Amino acid sequence: MLADQQILRIPGPTPIPPSVQRAMAQPMIGHRGQSTSDLFARIRPKLKRVFGTEQDVILLTGSGTAGLETAVVNTVAPGEEVLVIVTGAFGERFMKICKAYHLTTHVLQVEWGKAANPELVKTFLKEHPDVKVVLSTFCETSTGVLNPVKQLAAAIREVSDALIVVDGVSCVGGVETRMDEWGIDVMVTGSQKAFMLPAGLAFVAASERAWRKIESNSQPRFYLDLKSHRDNLAKDTTPFTPALSILFGLEQALELMEEEGLEEVYLRHTLMMKMVRAAFTAHGIPLLTTEKDASPTVTAVAPADFDAEVFRKKMKSEFGISLAGGQGHLAGKIFRIGHMGYCSAADILQLVSAIEIDLMRIGKSIELGKGIGAAQQIYLNERVGQL
Amino acid sequence: MLADQQILRIPGPTPIPPSVQRAMAQPMIGHRGQSTSDLFARIRPKLKRVFGTEQDVILLTGSGTAGLETAVVNTVAPGEEVLVIVTGAFGERFMKICKAYHLTTHVLQVEWGKAANPELVKTFLKEHPDVKVVLSTFCETSTGVLNPVKQLAAAIREVSDALIVVDGVSCVGGVETRMDEWGIDVMVTGSQKAFMLPAGLAFVAASERAWRKIESNSQPRFYLDLKSHRDNLAKDTTPFTPALSILFGLEQALELMEEEGLEEVYLRHTLMMKMVRAAFTAHGIPLLTTEKDASPTVTAVAPADFDAEVFRKKMKSEFGISLAGGQGHLAGKIFRIGHMGYCSAADILQLVSAIEIDLMRIGKSIELGKGIGAAQQIYLNERVGQL
Repeated sequence: MLADQQILRIPGPTPIPPSVQRAMAQPMIGHRGQSTSDLFARIRPKLKRVFGTEQDVILLTGSGTAGLETAVVNTVAPGEEVLVIVTGAFGERFMKICKAYHLTTHVLQVEWGKAANPELVKTFLKEHPDVKVVLSTFCETSTGVLNPVKQLAAAIREVSDALIVVDGVSCVGGVETRMDEWGIDVMVTGSQKAFMLPAGLAFVAASERAWRKIESNSQPRFYLDLKSHRDNLAKDTTPFTPALSILFGLEQALELMEEEGLEEVYLRHTLMMKMVRAAFTAHGIPLLTTEKDASPTVTAVAPADFDAEVFRKKMKSEFGISLAGGQGHLAGKIFRIGHMGYCSAADILQLVSAIEIDLMRIGKSIELGKGIGAAQQIYLNERVGQL
Repeated sequence: MLADQQILRIPGPTPIPPSVQRAMAQPMIGHRGQSTSDLFARIRPKLKRVFGTEQDVILLTGSGTAGLETAVVNTVAPGEEVLVIVTGAFGERFMKICKAYHLTTHVLQVEWGKAANPELVKTFLKEHPDVKVVLSTFCETSTGVLNPVKQLAAAIREVSDALIVVDGVSCVGGVETRMDEWGIDVMVTGSQKAFMLPAGLAFVAASERAWRKIESNSQPRFYLDLKSHRDNLAKDTTPFTPALSILFGLEQALELMEEEGLEEVYLRHTLMMKMVRAAFTAHGIPLLTTEKDASPTVTAVAPADFDAEVFRKKMKSEFGISLAGGQGHLAGKIFRIGHMGYCSAADILQLVSAIEIDLMRIGKSIELGKGIGAAQQIYLNERVGQL
């Protein structure tokens, strides 16, 4: 195998574009100097557009989980009731954070692989009027489900004043996100997914409603206190030392997103999802989710007649292509494909071609070229009329 | 289109592996210091293996053409007769260099797209016993032909004492090269092809026979004088300032080649060639060369019913994939695919899938997946029995 070729098709971290890599290699500067403030001033308006909000997007130095904990400790007062919608491993993470803070934690369990149903959430909240915060995952990375957070927020708002907190880690930047318009109160994401960066930054935006709660919230917190971050960011700085090289990269990643056009970025992700799904469907290989529930950023495949782990190992040894395994009770039963961030239709064509070969290599008899033909056809259909 | 994605499938420069890119980013050091000498000492034995020679491989700071001129001015005395075997644009380059030095330049013209015939060369030399040097291209980049230099050298040796000079620019490092065993007197290559580096270094190795001529040759030369390079290299240094960052990269590129194994590197190139050829053949699209004459590093496609230039533009605008056009009288009539250096079977699968889409996009009706299926089948056949 060609030495040094590693093709990352896991749902994060994702490949880093060359120009972002170069941007991150800039020499270090002092984080209290004017150059860093100028950098924040350039980044802030662009981040707002990706989140679909007029609010400032707070930049925390930490991983996605730090962002989720930030959302919880800032919006939930000690002892309050919360509802966590759990559709997979990352919904469980929200639950664990809430329990660590001894909150009264209600859980709405959804079968892994399926999206949350807004009507069931509404019913639950009617029966539990004291729930102050509802926490949901947007893209559930462990199953490839995209929860309908717009519809969830609308349903919740009909029956409750609870704040709506969304974990958008594995999709914001790759799927349309209109935080203000949809009535999301807190949206969280991380740098190592659709933002095409290494892990190390978490992004958190809060609505005006949320800020009112945050300001009066007595929950003890220091590093993750959004108020101090907000007040500093308003002056183009941070309360604590920021991960500067990733901020250098963030500016370039946002530049790339704007160069392509945000709408085009979202269309590309949907196209990649459809191509991947069509390829497996052509070979009769089951997918974990329905197309309606599927995320444009991650696809989970649930093979019926071959071993997911054997197949993953083959893809790695034969082509240097990394796929992700299953999490929790799905470990060994599914494999997951990340198609987000710095990933193109051409990359999906490569992936699908290599998958067909390795299905044969592990002994599954398939018609070569059938899946790739289906993916190619999707591409052609989507591009009809476009130059 | 995904911003910042550029996929280089031209026959040089070729993509640079990440670890080579990192190696080249090392801080500058003085080129007269011990560290640089240590670097040369590590590089020298590895380069010999790639060339298949016991002789030192001279490292010149210059492009491939500087290497070709070096071969000419060091091996040909003023006014001597030479024979240039011209199978394409780079054979013509050798001819132009010889003419610039007012040498008596015989040319054996071979139809572009075909390989040189050893018997015809033998016949020519019998008729021209005063030819002192025969110059041939190994891989003719402009047509994708691999000239049979082993057989050419054997045929020449039967009838003549002429030195045999070979331009191996677009193949050494990607195809088996046994300079000593085959009786090649001078072998030249450049850094930006199978060596996976940027342009800037030329490599020249000379046989003992050639060194005897070089030492007594009165042809004026200074920068390109191989004697001063040889004498300096024996002391792990260079007569003039070397392109140090590319040397940093060269060490890592040689490391990658040895990690994969040279035999595996050559098999990978042959496999990529077969996959590319099978894909076009499956769609009935003509190739410029026969499989027997084809180079494992470059494939020239000669479309009969679509415009090569329109197609190339489409590949660039749609997928960011660069293909090369034709040179000389083949301009506009062919397109060329580079599959050498940092390029894998997975990359060829991607390329072929994208090619099928863009054939459709420019209006050629093809059966989607047919070419890719043929390429996949080649891969599977070659890997039978291998884990």
